[in-house]
Amino acid sequence: MSQPDAKRVKTDEPSYELIYWPSAPGRGEPVRLLFEEAGVPYVDTAKDPGQAAETIQGLMAADHLGDDSNPPVFAPPLLRHGDLLINQLPNILLYLAPKLGLAPAAGPAVYHLNAIVLTLLDGFVNELHETHHPIATSQYYDDQKPEAKKRSKSYREERLPRFLGYAQRLLDAKTSGDGPWLYGGSLTYADLVLFQGIHGTRYAFPKTVEKLQKSGKYDGVFALFEAVQERPNIKAYMESDRRVGYSQGIWRYYPELEE
Amino acid sequence: MSQPDAKRVKTDEPSYELIYWPSAPGRGEPVRLLFEEAGVPYVDTAKDPGQAAETIQGLMAADHLGDDSNPPVFAPPLLRHGDLLINQLPNILLYLAPKLGLAPAAGPAVYHLNAIVLTLLDGFVNELHETHHPIATSQYYDDQKPEAKKRSKSYREERLPRFLGYAQRLLDAKTSGDGPWLYGGSLTYADLVLFQGIHGTRYAFPKTVEKLQKSGKYDGVFALFEAVQERPNIKAYMESDRRVGYSQGIWRYYPELEE
Repeated sequence: MSQPDAKRVKTDEPSYELIYWPSAPGRGEPVRLLFEEAGVPYVDTAKDPGQAAETIQGLMAADHLGDDSNPPVFAPPLLRHGDLLINQLPNILLYLAPKLGLAPAAGPAVYHLNAIVLTLLDGFVNELHETHHPIATSQYYDDQKPEAKKRSKSYREERLPRFLGYAQRLLDAKTSGDGPWLYGGSLTYADLVLFQGIHGTRYAFPKTVEKLQKSGKYDGVFALFEAVQERPNIKAYMESDRRVGYSQGIWRYYPELEE
Repeated sequence: MSQPDAKRVKTDEPSYELIYWPSAPGRGEPVRLLFEEAGVPYVDTAKDPGQAAETIQGLMAADHLGDDSNPPVFAPPLLRHGDLLINQLPNILLYLAPKLGLAPAAGPAVYHLNAIVLTLLDGFVNELHETHHPIATSQYYDDQKPEAKKRSKSYREERLPRFLGYAQRLLDAKTSGDGPWLYGGSLTYADLVLFQGIHGTRYAFPKTVEKLQKSGKYDGVFALFEAVQERPNIKAYMESDRRVGYSQGIWRYYPELEE
């Protein structure tokens, strides 16, 4: 599934291209996990950092008006598939999941899973980002450190337990079905989103997550994390150089935010 | 479309029920605007404040596990339609819009509109809420006022112009088609979301929005606002007692946050 292999695959289906910032997993990562679990080739713009930055800056420019069939976009990640270009992470996942066999294509499950994924992204991505940038995305972390400490405290003590509790409730519910999965008795893209959410949050707040894990209140959530981690395609991906390390993105490690 | 009328409508279609907190428009409001524009009856739980609070607290309880066919939910708004119960505002809109004639049911437009709506909700709802609660949703505004002033400054000076600029780019793009609308040459639910976003943001930051309007950079956005406001069903709704006034919800007016 490396880029050269991807380009050698012959098929009538147009290829998938993920457009995202290089050098941190960020909001591109759930998209990558869907492709990797499904074993479906994709082009990852972030692998060519110069090209990625140029492409993204062009698409986000104040005078960029999209093209004949696609409206302008606000921010990455973006997905290109044939003539279609779309943005917004939960939207990209909604589009991809049924095509990759990771969600039903119609019926109530579409809306149940979309609600679950939107909520997991709120808790483990959007609100987590606020912990180190509660005042302004455009300013340095060091310039908003006192506020980041306060926001982190409420995240660690109130919000994170509440989102973990929600995930555990999903697992305890009848709708989770058999096995370790969130919904419908089989692996879906929601499980991959939760896996990345826990993985990133554990990197950012290791002591907090360890303490919450040891509380025994969220055993199903951590069992799901392990089950995703052991999926052969996910395991191979996490050990490959396609998986980018954490740095100055959504999930950052500032020890003072756990004090 | 008052509640008694709604209950008298005879049809094989199950009725729609919006479940949301009473006493502020909040995240329930875009859902109401879809029903009102479409002229489709709906039951609005918020109209019975005691009942609404009890229903919501039950559904959000730490031991609530959904039912046989619906997973537990995190927070309102919720939509009940027959046996289906779903939450997450953009998810509810995605479900309703094609049924109410406010979006196509299939094809690229589904994903283009979902991306537009997710971005508008980020800019005019989610980030706006952060301006008065940048530290903790669970704490009083008065206990986070200094941080709220800083966050509001970056919202007013950076984020709000950027989101307005995005909406204007959508209108300037080929994909907006004819007329004042964001996408595809006819009114969609995205236009209703932008209308409420501007309406609420103007309430919260009146001087800022007036200044941005007078800059002439976003004339299309404010023309769209006027066009939605003049829709007969929207106009009748806004003048009715079904429209709740702003109070201590998402959109609040604190003059000190504009200083």
